[in-house]
Amino acid sequence: MTSRITRVQDTLPADEALLVTKPANVRYLSGYSGSNGIVLLTQSDATLFTDSRYAIQASSECFDVNIVISSDLFKGAAELAKGSDLQIEARHLTVGAFNRLSDLLAPNRIKVSAVGIESFRVVKDENEIALIEQACQIATSALNQVTSINLIGRTEREIARLLEFEMLNLGAEAIGFETIVASGPNSAIAHHQPTGRALSQGDLLKIDFGARVSGYHSDCTRTFVAGKPNQWQQDLYSLVLSAQTNSRSVLTGGVTASEVVKPTMVEFEKAGLLTNFGHGLGHGVGLEIHEDPFLSNKLDDTLDPGTVLTVEPGLYFPDQGGVRIEDTVVVTSYGYRTLTDYSYDLIEIGK
Amino acid sequence: MTSRITRVQDTLPADEALLVTKPANVRYLSGYSGSNGIVLLTQSDATLFTDSRYAIQASSECFDVNIVISSDLFKGAAELAKGSDLQIEARHLTVGAFNRLSDLLAPNRIKVSAVGIESFRVVKDENEIALIEQACQIATSALNQVTSINLIGRTEREIARLLEFEMLNLGAEAIGFETIVASGPNSAIAHHQPTGRALSQGDLLKIDFGARVSGYHSDCTRTFVAGKPNQWQQDLYSLVLSAQTNSRSVLTGGVTASEVVKPTMVEFEKAGLLTNFGHGLGHGVGLEIHEDPFLSNKLDDTLDPGTVLTVEPGLYFPDQGGVRIEDTVVVTSYGYRTLTDYSYDLIEIGK
Repeated sequence: MTSRITRVQDTLPADEALLVTKPANVRYLSGYSGSNGIVLLTQSDATLFTDSRYAIQASSECFDVNIVISSDLFKGAAELAKGSDLQIEARHLTVGAFNRLSDLLAPNRIKVSAVGIESFRVVKDENEIALIEQACQIATSALNQVTSINLIGRTEREIARLLEFEMLNLGAEAIGFETIVASGPNSAIAHHQPTGRALSQGDLLKIDFGARVSGYHSDCTRTFVAGKPNQWQQDLYSLVLSAQTNSRSVLTGGVTASEVVKPTMVEFEKAGLLTNFGHGLGHGVGLEIHEDPFLSNKLDDTLDPGTVLTVEPGLYFPDQGGVRIEDTVVVTSYGYRTLTDYSYDLIEIGK
Repeated sequence: MTSRITRVQDTLPADEALLVTKPANVRYLSGYSGSNGIVLLTQSDATLFTDSRYAIQASSECFDVNIVISSDLFKGAAELAKGSDLQIEARHLTVGAFNRLSDLLAPNRIKVSAVGIESFRVVKDENEIALIEQACQIATSALNQVTSINLIGRTEREIARLLEFEMLNLGAEAIGFETIVASGPNSAIAHHQPTGRALSQGDLLKIDFGARVSGYHSDCTRTFVAGKPNQWQQDLYSLVLSAQTNSRSVLTGGVTASEVVKPTMVEFEKAGLLTNFGHGLGHGVGLEIHEDPFLSNKLDDTLDPGTVLTVEPGLYFPDQGGVRIEDTVVVTSYGYRTLTDYSYDLIEIGK
């Protein structure tokens, strides 16, 4: 972890301290995975503040940081930061906490950090990629097992539970996020919560789910059909798959986010269906399920090798249904590698 | 829901709007349960802003609010709030969002809301209590089933998975929070994450877990022993149970938080073990697993009938073990009712 801390410290002027409060950033820098910890960095020091409930956990998880146990984390950090200007994480720190720090220090000593820890987290190291890959393998194995059952007649909730149970059985420490199982007309809802609706012959079945391993996530969506697909379903599936394949195929170190988005936009625009898309094409995956970089057609940031992200075009038709196909992939110097290795066929459930 | 919105609107001056950004508060007021929604209240209007992914969900979940679909929620809300002063939730809104709103409005038009929506959520209505009770019943039924198995030799992770699977099978929409299963010396860690450690003869086994039903949580901890308890384990258990019973027994509408904490403090102080406690005695439970009120010996806030909260003393001895006993209860006019109905005996696993 030294190198992570050192890389951030290298951005700090001698008379400034950085207060890290966002849990994923705290974990990335210090190893601490509990729910109540903050890190204060200066050029020469790194200190984790947590409360007594986490004393044992912090000492077993953390290295390369001093650990201070305190019932008032902000007070402790402000005392240590005294004499320095204090950089804060504006995207995470609350107005209430800011006001507290202003009282403890002086408001004009506090400033928004220009360098987000999120940007250091974009490119993953080998260990991080291995954990994400493990989470992806658990997820796709679980999906294989669950979709080999005839799911027709099972409710969305039951299907979600089966999938989650398999992921946990296969070694996930937790599910990565709330499983989306959306059948029939519900598949038109991009972020649908599983209901008591039973899967029926002819339904589309959209499943968006993930596992978590040592804090790292996987993210994968596949859309199935219960029984034989009709022409509309086949055409819709082919169109989304084509967009997904084309956007994936341009991935390589140095490409920009907008270049990855473009093939999907072109495909959907040609079909006159751009308004049926309605969400981003993808996002980074790591200690958070949604993290930098976000794939937008307005972003000219280049993707560096080691970046892990999703590619997930979808098309949604209210009251009819929808299709989304999503992979988690890692960008490499000469292309990309898919971590969610799973069939791209429109698989017929209950066949 | 009208009455919830109306009660908050009644606190608003005619020329002020309130921007609600904390998800649990947004859900409480509007019914919206997605991950990207904010509510703007004026004396006469209530509007939910969300993005197109949630259009269908919002229209099915919400009532008594206008729904605005937008790709820039803060911009939409700022436009609607123009001409009014804007109250914000300082405990939730980030400094970054505050700066954005300052750009859209004027910084001197924004002020911290004095009345937190959290305070409106403390006293639950009948429907809310029924949902929490359902979550509690699911949790305790699952615990009964899992502890009827001989768990000796099972890992903490396996025990956690079994418990979670049973809760989901029994109708929980999700687990309420990350299950704590802590065996042997690990039981000394107040907030322990389940590991691969197998339960062995003579271990204490502390399980802190909960279910979620329609957004509402349950929270319960019991401590077991693998095989026969030794004298130290028996004495420790009796002491924690006595504290828990005595603190519970003073609960009634009108009592203060500090009056509830006192019996536990007296008991632990008498035993010379106050420093082995180290966390709060309890907290409110509802749409969040930890919410107001928090039981502290410094708080003289009175508990009103309908308040749902935990009572959870514990004692922890590093490298040896620990015991916590926790119930979720609802305060009534003449006492309290325990929602996590489960034995207080020191149950021997594998007997």
